[in-house]
Amino acid sequence: MLPTRDELLRVHERIKPFIHFTPVLQSSLLNEITGANVFFKCENFQKMGAFKMRGAMNAILQLSEEEKKAGVVTHSSGNFGQAVALAARNAGVTAYIVMPANAPSVKKKAVKDYGGLVTECESTLKARVAESERIQREHGATPLHPSNQIEVILGNATAAMELLSEHPDLDFVFTPIGGGGLVAGTALATHYFGTNCKTIGGEPYEADDAYRSLQSGKIESNITTNTIADGLRTELGSVNFPIIKALVPEIIRVTEEEIVQALRLIWERMKIIVEPSCAVPFAALLKEKDRFKGNDIGIIISGGNVDLSNLPFAK
Amino acid sequence: MLPTRDELLRVHERIKPFIHFTPVLQSSLLNEITGANVFFKCENFQKMGAFKMRGAMNAILQLSEEEKKAGVVTHSSGNFGQAVALAARNAGVTAYIVMPANAPSVKKKAVKDYGGLVTECESTLKARVAESERIQREHGATPLHPSNQIEVILGNATAAMELLSEHPDLDFVFTPIGGGGLVAGTALATHYFGTNCKTIGGEPYEADDAYRSLQSGKIESNITTNTIADGLRTELGSVNFPIIKALVPEIIRVTEEEIVQALRLIWERMKIIVEPSCAVPFAALLKEKDRFKGNDIGIIISGGNVDLSNLPFAK
Repeated sequence: MLPTRDELLRVHERIKPFIHFTPVLQSSLLNEITGANVFFKCENFQKMGAFKMRGAMNAILQLSEEEKKAGVVTHSSGNFGQAVALAARNAGVTAYIVMPANAPSVKKKAVKDYGGLVTECESTLKARVAESERIQREHGATPLHPSNQIEVILGNATAAMELLSEHPDLDFVFTPIGGGGLVAGTALATHYFGTNCKTIGGEPYEADDAYRSLQSGKIESNITTNTIADGLRTELGSVNFPIIKALVPEIIRVTEEEIVQALRLIWERMKIIVEPSCAVPFAALLKEKDRFKGNDIGIIISGGNVDLSNLPFAK
Repeated sequence: MLPTRDELLRVHERIKPFIHFTPVLQSSLLNEITGANVFFKCENFQKMGAFKMRGAMNAILQLSEEEKKAGVVTHSSGNFGQAVALAARNAGVTAYIVMPANAPSVKKKAVKDYGGLVTECESTLKARVAESERIQREHGATPLHPSNQIEVILGNATAAMELLSEHPDLDFVFTPIGGGGLVAGTALATHYFGTNCKTIGGEPYEADDAYRSLQSGKIESNITTNTIADGLRTELGSVNFPIIKALVPEIIRVTEEEIVQALRLIWERMKIIVEPSCAVPFAALLKEKDRFKGNDIGIIISGGNVDLSNLPFAK
């Protein structure tokens, strides 16, 4: 029932001309601190600043010519809205991005700069879904989901595929878990392209739906979403959960303090700008470092779009 | 009278085992904005976070066995102190680092973490020189200068040598100008390893001693040093100025506002953490972009050691 190895290879070929093969960085100091050999796959250097570009690009490129003519629609105030706008522009497709009227103007501007048509609505999920459905009806636009759509998941998988093509003997790849699209794609990649490589998820205690879902065997909801890792407040879906259940052996939860500490280490020691969400898998490794000592570990640095005016590094 | 091409090659061979061959990054957006093809040589990813590691390493490795036994001394509260401490540790040499007692404790800690022996003194240049001379007398330690010493300049040259080894057809390499050690080394590298490649300096109006020195033909002093680019408040010296005069055709000055704007562009668009000093050459390119349109341009990103609690990105 899983997508095949060949499907993954075809997806990478399809999106390659439109994405960066992002660099992998290492830090001797962070290796020392963790006792592991850590390879950071820098999707913060990806086009539009996040891995979401991969899934959006794949979802749009595999549309029929007719579907392409009618455009695509998504509701997202985050990276996925920007990714769909840019991926659609690359493919000559119209992108309707539904955003709450009260979304930060800088985020609306980013979508517009990438050529997306922003439609504003109220800030509730209900209003966003309604507006998205209106656009589907009126324009025939195809809806795209940020994490619970197989084409998006397969696109996301290509980050870990690239990482494994350069470092085929990794023991583990750590990713953050939000909506589940990145961890599911990564798990497919490690399954097919690793040599006994497992995918481990990192999740905030404050938004631990995936941890509890893996425990109970069914999709659970978040109880709180009070986390600095704003990209991880979403929940698993029916498409990615079966993949996660089959291929992700473990999810490690971390506190907000552990996230900020890991974030600061990455900024200060690696000199790269990463979103708080990216620090979650590294925080998970730090927390359980005794268990992973001596291993070769990949970490997907998922994105780097942060508001520099509002950083958690107070004096 | 210039050092030779062979000398530069020998220096690179000598320090290679102790430094990173740092990555070169590009940004399609910054290429669009400048109209040039810009290659950022990321010395912020260098060991201890700055190009200074190269010069310090070379200066220490070329000491005699006897000199190595007696140790080295420098007075610096910035990157060079840290670089000497780490380079000395790599070579099994004792490093005495003279720092003002009122230097930030985080900087003293960094030097100590790299194994340097910190000696505190008053915050005046006179006190620092006196303390350094006492250590030379008492321990026989060799003094190292952050910018006005030929071994340091030759070590610094290796950053541009690596850049040109990957991109041999660059038209220009831009560097910041502080004490003159980086721009002089870079100018030697472009002279010997470029194909008609020139080195251009970027300097703050608020610390424009080098610009005025090039105009007058003799070493001038800074009138103000009121710049955010704290690495560039120092002045040229008798060893690097003749090289600069011979090989650097132009220095472009920029305002504080231009520096902060360029800094923000690099952070936001390239997702890398760079010191304000690094933004100066990029600000210079932005300012004069019409003249450099269509050219292949290298920029030495000199370092990434910033205080995250004190950033110039206010709301």
